[in-house]
Amino acid sequence: RCSEHSLEVGSCISLSQQVCSPELLSLSLTRRGLPKEKMSENGLMSRAKVLTIDTMNPTVKKVEYAVRGPIVQRAVELERELSEGMKKPFVEVIRANIGDAHAMGQQPITFFRQVLALCSYPELLNDSTFPEDAKSRAHRILQSCGGNSMGSYSASQGIDSVRQDVARYIERRDGGVSCDPDDIYLTTGASDGIVTMLKLLMCGEGAARTGVMISIPQYPLYSAALAELGAVQINYYLNEENCWSLDITELQRALDEARLHCNPRALCIINPGNPTGQVQSRECIEDVIRFAAKERLFLMADEVYQDNVYADGCQFHSFKKVLFEMGPEYSNTVELASFHSTSKCYMGECGFRGGYMEIINMDDDVKAQLTKLVSVRLCPPVPGQALMDLVVNPPQPGEPSYDNFIKERTATLSVLAEKAKLTEQVLNTVQGISCNPVQGAMYSFPRITIPKKAIEEDKGQQPDMFYCMKMLEETGICLVPGSGFGQKEGTYHFRMTILPPTDKLQILLNKVKEFHQKFTQQYS
Amino acid sequence: RCSEHSLEVGSCISLSQQVCSPELLSLSLTRRGLPKEKMSENGLMSRAKVLTIDTMNPTVKKVEYAVRGPIVQRAVELERELSEGMKKPFVEVIRANIGDAHAMGQQPITFFRQVLALCSYPELLNDSTFPEDAKSRAHRILQSCGGNSMGSYSASQGIDSVRQDVARYIERRDGGVSCDPDDIYLTTGASDGIVTMLKLLMCGEGAARTGVMISIPQYPLYSAALAELGAVQINYYLNEENCWSLDITELQRALDEARLHCNPRALCIINPGNPTGQVQSRECIEDVIRFAAKERLFLMADEVYQDNVYADGCQFHSFKKVLFEMGPEYSNTVELASFHSTSKCYMGECGFRGGYMEIINMDDDVKAQLTKLVSVRLCPPVPGQALMDLVVNPPQPGEPSYDNFIKERTATLSVLAEKAKLTEQVLNTVQGISCNPVQGAMYSFPRITIPKKAIEEDKGQQPDMFYCMKMLEETGICLVPGSGFGQKEGTYHFRMTILPPTDKLQILLNKVKEFHQKFTQQYS
Repeated sequence: RCSEHSLEVGSCISLSQQVCSPELLSLSLTRRGLPKEKMSENGLMSRAKVLTIDTMNPTVKKVEYAVRGPIVQRAVELERELSEGMKKPFVEVIRANIGDAHAMGQQPITFFRQVLALCSYPELLNDSTFPEDAKSRAHRILQSCGGNSMGSYSASQGIDSVRQDVARYIERRDGGVSCDPDDIYLTTGASDGIVTMLKLLMCGEGAARTGVMISIPQYPLYSAALAELGAVQINYYLNEENCWSLDITELQRALDEARLHCNPRALCIINPGNPTGQVQSRECIEDVIRFAAKERLFLMADEVYQDNVYADGCQFHSFKKVLFEMGPEYSNTVELASFHSTSKCYMGECGFRGGYMEIINMDDDVKAQLTKLVSVRLCPPVPGQALMDLVVNPPQPGEPSYDNFIKERTATLSVLAEKAKLTEQVLNTVQGISCNPVQGAMYSFPRITIPKKAIEEDKGQQPDMFYCMKMLEETGICLVPGSGFGQKEGTYHFRMTILPPTDKLQILLNKVKEFHQKFTQQYS
Repeated sequence: RCSEHSLEVGSCISLSQQVCSPELLSLSLTRRGLPKEKMSENGLMSRAKVLTIDTMNPTVKKVEYAVRGPIVQRAVELERELSEGMKKPFVEVIRANIGDAHAMGQQPITFFRQVLALCSYPELLNDSTFPEDAKSRAHRILQSCGGNSMGSYSASQGIDSVRQDVARYIERRDGGVSCDPDDIYLTTGASDGIVTMLKLLMCGEGAARTGVMISIPQYPLYSAALAELGAVQINYYLNEENCWSLDITELQRALDEARLHCNPRALCIINPGNPTGQVQSRECIEDVIRFAAKERLFLMADEVYQDNVYADGCQFHSFKKVLFEMGPEYSNTVELASFHSTSKCYMGECGFRGGYMEIINMDDDVKAQLTKLVSVRLCPPVPGQALMDLVVNPPQPGEPSYDNFIKERTATLSVLAEKAKLTEQVLNTVQGISCNPVQGAMYSFPRITIPKKAIEEDKGQQPDMFYCMKMLEETGICLVPGSGFGQKEGTYHFRMTILPPTDKLQILLNKVKEFHQKFTQQYS
């Protein structure tokens, strides 16, 4: 029996030569009385590729990643067509699909780039136009690098001095709760750390297969990673009616149901939220910790948007801090991994792939395995590690670069806050669009009403994909349909970033409004 | 039945609370008449961690990576002890375990670092001390980045213009054989591309499980990745007696035997070789291609040392070039992935994690899956992509930086060639050490005779680990035992790099000689 196709071996050959092994193929041919040599003559053997859609990794085929999925591929085509002079109903494609701040015009922090330049080309340490604090940071970083060069591999867990700086940052951020640098792993963006942790948790088959809880809507790295690893994705629904709040009753429902068919072992939470933008209350975070403790779940806190908090009354509460403030019953027992990145907040340095994870209460033997696992890929990119060092160890009062640093950071964050408010306001003026407050992060995830006639128009794709594709073709605006993130059955959304420059964002929002009105009318 | 422990559920609880699921645990307790509440009271539930050595990913536990394994951990400890003033038989630890050129004092290429500085901090484009060719390269790279910033995510396959430059480099290198930029994927070091390709190839269970052929000795990324993916590692032995040549009869033997118990689908070859340093002849490469074609194997050519060729009469022959020169019967059919990196050659820029792979003759549908898979991790680090761009598009005759570039590149490569020769020479003067010519790459892998008494001394570890650990403790020299790479049964080796500065290398080699003589005497 061909295990890949679940067919009798003799039938396999009829699958247009896409068989899993030459053995089975030749076995099949022999059974049919066809000699191998004849097969070569009629070219059968020479035509079949080794690696085909049927013989490739089946879990990879299940992976989807909407943020760079089909709608973005179409946007890229449209950009190409525009640049070739083809006439369109728009003059430019506006990419509001991905949380890439610099691509939308946000400026890097001057100090960070000065230090990176000094680290890249240390001759510049003799250049008087660079401020002293940038030089001393660069010097410190380079001293921690083999041969004083960013071109050396670092320790696999990350440069020691950077991990120490990260630990001190965490202690300052968390009001003194202590942090052991040995619990810090630098990573290639936060995605790397998240995937590594999920990989460690994979264990068991069938009814004992690892299940991982994730919010719906979620950032599709999680669904993609779980699909690739063959884990069970356990969806818990955020409450759209209550500003995307997380209700413990819903966590319990999801968990109890999941226990019937898999082995739930971890709970992932993104706070501030992506795509939903909510900033969870401290009470909520305590509830989640209590739930994880009671139900014995490994907690994974994705906190990459920790500086992106805009709404009055909202505040970022780190899971680590809350955990420790809940006392030893929790802080000694709950296993927690929290993730941060250089890609978001006020830095927007996505391309450098900087990140870290802090690992709390991990079993020592497992930690040794984790350390071993990360050693195989040698180390995260050193420029990203250097950047993370600057993020956690920025200019201090009294240092030459301090004023400008504060000015740039404040400007960036306040502009984001304005755009968050603008987005919510404009979208809520549209009949058929309903937008929760963008309390934090970089996105809005408004709910859209799609007329029945439009839902029936194209049964081949999700209605919100149909909607977003039409929007793209008619306005040049590239958003990502809610189906790429997950949503309650029968509801539709899209995710747009709040990143375009304010004037362009205003235009984008007006075009979205116009489009929605036109679309609604067209399909009414 | 507890699937993880293959035990009757009732027995599971005796495994000191390390059970796979709370369900089974409570079921077990119920069967034993213990109420769940009692379990909480005696603290059982609160003590067991969610993630333990028994409940973690079993394939991760099988992963080993000797290059950063136990001997290196001991070297790090010794460095710490030295720095704390502890007295040792040596004044410094010499790390000859890893192919990290900059860590051992090799200098980066000035031009490359100038361009990286310009890209990091574009203000420097106004700085007259930077040469024009560096500025124009930087300008071109930045124009290809979103928002003209290295902080933007690039396209997931890599920056377009860089992929075009890579394609042109390949065409020049391969005497005009054409290269489609769409076949180029930029990667986070070569390791990333290699693991991605192996992942795609994984398919099938039991007797149909994917098997991958790899040379023994090999670079342990391959064994680690195959272990983690759950693939079958199919060892083919290089011929030590013939300068680590690759014999087709040995490939055939390994393949035929493997077919009895798995589904061999790919053949990996490292040329120039790591750890063995051989540079395969053109004839050998043709033979391998013919073998892969005949036996329907996906060919993976790890060519990261392509500029590191030292021995007279040796030359790097790219698999792509040879494939196409063998005519359409092969060039139209053999599926090939070849890998390159910014970490080796004359650049030594390991920390930047730059790399690419060229994919030849891949099925279109699989290629679309590959493109989708790499999109989940967004993109490789942009500084590494920029660096790769410079490697494939270096200063040209007539450009301001050309002379210095050639001078630096030539100096680095010729020093490596001298050190390759020195290493071979000195080691071959030692009775009981036998070193093949270091024809290329960055390592020597000499065979060592270990006295029987030493083999029996510590049955708990591999004899060559015992040998290397002793060498480390007595001389401070950190090498990696051959068992970390694979070797013929009953033979022992170590891998050392040729990277320390020449004077230090000389000292290292003399110490190795002394140690070996002493060790042999001690255990005779």
